[in-house]
Amino acid sequence: MNDYEVFDLGDVILQHGATLRDAKLAYKTYGTLNEEKSNAIVYPTWYSGFHWDNEWLIGEGMSLDPAKYFIIVPNMLGNGLSSSPSNTPPPHDQANFPNVTFYDQVETQHKLVTEHFGIETLALVTGWSMGAGQTYQWTVSYPDMVQRAAPFCGSSKTSEHNFVFLEGVKAALTSPESFKDGFYDEKPVESLRAAARVYAGWGFSQAFYWDRLYTEMGHSRRLGMNLAFPTLEDFLVDYWEGHFLDRRDVNDLLAMLWTWQHGDVGATPGFDGDHIKALQSIKAKLIAMPAKKDLYFPPEDEEYASQYIPNGEVRVIPGVWGHFAGSGDSPVDLQWIDGVVKELLAS
Amino acid sequence: MNDYEVFDLGDVILQHGATLRDAKLAYKTYGTLNEEKSNAIVYPTWYSGFHWDNEWLIGEGMSLDPAKYFIIVPNMLGNGLSSSPSNTPPPHDQANFPNVTFYDQVETQHKLVTEHFGIETLALVTGWSMGAGQTYQWTVSYPDMVQRAAPFCGSSKTSEHNFVFLEGVKAALTSPESFKDGFYDEKPVESLRAAARVYAGWGFSQAFYWDRLYTEMGHSRRLGMNLAFPTLEDFLVDYWEGHFLDRRDVNDLLAMLWTWQHGDVGATPGFDGDHIKALQSIKAKLIAMPAKKDLYFPPEDEEYASQYIPNGEVRVIPGVWGHFAGSGDSPVDLQWIDGVVKELLAS
Repeated sequence: MNDYEVFDLGDVILQHGATLRDAKLAYKTYGTLNEEKSNAIVYPTWYSGFHWDNEWLIGEGMSLDPAKYFIIVPNMLGNGLSSSPSNTPPPHDQANFPNVTFYDQVETQHKLVTEHFGIETLALVTGWSMGAGQTYQWTVSYPDMVQRAAPFCGSSKTSEHNFVFLEGVKAALTSPESFKDGFYDEKPVESLRAAARVYAGWGFSQAFYWDRLYTEMGHSRRLGMNLAFPTLEDFLVDYWEGHFLDRRDVNDLLAMLWTWQHGDVGATPGFDGDHIKALQSIKAKLIAMPAKKDLYFPPEDEEYASQYIPNGEVRVIPGVWGHFAGSGDSPVDLQWIDGVVKELLAS
Repeated sequence: MNDYEVFDLGDVILQHGATLRDAKLAYKTYGTLNEEKSNAIVYPTWYSGFHWDNEWLIGEGMSLDPAKYFIIVPNMLGNGLSSSPSNTPPPHDQANFPNVTFYDQVETQHKLVTEHFGIETLALVTGWSMGAGQTYQWTVSYPDMVQRAAPFCGSSKTSEHNFVFLEGVKAALTSPESFKDGFYDEKPVESLRAAARVYAGWGFSQAFYWDRLYTEMGHSRRLGMNLAFPTLEDFLVDYWEGHFLDRRDVNDLLAMLWTWQHGDVGATPGFDGDHIKALQSIKAKLIAMPAKKDLYFPPEDEEYASQYIPNGEVRVIPGVWGHFAGSGDSPVDLQWIDGVVKELLAS
């Protein structure tokens, strides 16, 4: 799928000190930028997601309608399309890839948006999971630029429990010997399969499994197919292991995992680690949408953060899908999210 | 710690067909069996636990008071003290160890209780987690024998979500090459460390980590020491990795994991897989104690099961410790559980 553009970032000086030379930002746009350059939306990708995994919220009649908006989907650094461990030459190849923060991610996206497109205002920033993390970072890094924000199933600061969940994923990725401390020639399949198994219990809620909803998940707009898995094992193999084995690189996953674990808008320069002060600086009208039964981004965390956001609000996605309510695989939750984003865009 | 007795089980014909020859049941007793043999309590062990890990509920003034009761703590088959992969000679050594069900576990314990001690009634069966699973199994296997039952943080049937959580633990245990498909000479340290990291996010609730309660957990009656970890990483290493690295064997953990994943009182002979019918057959006065924020044994599951137990009741352990509310490491939850068990014993 080479349906995307590549923006030359040049040399990117990262927050933690490394310089990523000749860095690339892969992105795709949908719709047309209007003359006033006032209809742009940024919609960053999620952990292990590519731009095409975001397309379910984009389309005619959808909230992100290309007939009205100019939607930019930047692929996160580390996701395998933008500069990543898997596509960067030495000295930053494979496990030598430097640590990238959410702040860094947004800096590269800001460069694309302003320097390449000449855009100075964003009608909306939105995203799922790590995409929500990038959304929050946009509102803090560029408070005057972001008019509206709709982070769903994510947070402005990675909680300690979330960090620990990711430690489990990291352990699964790194402990098989075929991982070779990140300097493998052959794909460490054991790592990917183990991580998929660890992830499976976290991605969906207890109630999702209790109701055996994997047997009839319905039409996934993200994948463009009906999702139905006759058995639990089939769901684990086909949906979960299949996802991780398909194009995902272990070092890429670890690079994104580091970004996620260290998510904190308080780490934005100027806030000296003060997360609350960073939240208080947000000017966007922001609607956070945690999912009711999300096991690693529970609604309580967003309720906590929201109290510090001047124009912030929380709407809890109902139902039992848990974190994957925001994946684009759940027809009902997709409609719900789309409805809130429409309302926000109309305001 | 050779403070226990060993009961010769002889040849144990397991539910799934294998015969475990010259099998052993390691156990410890507390208190004295009265003349009527009416004061016996069975208190089975939990996943990776040994009999000494159960002692926190036993003592003067505690619900399980040795001055009043004769408390038998049988070590589960697979835990490393009773017959287990780590201590069984060929042909059932290491990864050749056969699958053991909860039904099998209770059969061996019943043999000890009846044949060795001549006990025909049990004042109480109680246990945490897999100990709760064995408690349920006792009430179904021997409904006329068990007067009272207090399963805490466990279930009568392993839910699919719980099964998936365990798939993650299993993947972590089995994917490092040092595991050598279960035929290792040297302890596969990577397996144990990875499993500990995976487990850490599940054992305690999101709120426990949010509140950073690991920095001051208080006095653990189980471990006989104050638990306080200055940093999250220290908690992950010292409490979690330390637990798994201390005496635990990977094949033993996998044997117990299989038992757990296949937990189902409906699999008791005579019920033909009918879990509800099995619950309806329970005669004991039963108080189930799920913990409010338990991530793999959520209270809803126990509420569901309870409606089918004629003399069943659910009391939810409050607070944020999640599954580990029942570990004996939480001073407040220990008191709460102890109080309910006292009330049940007085009835």
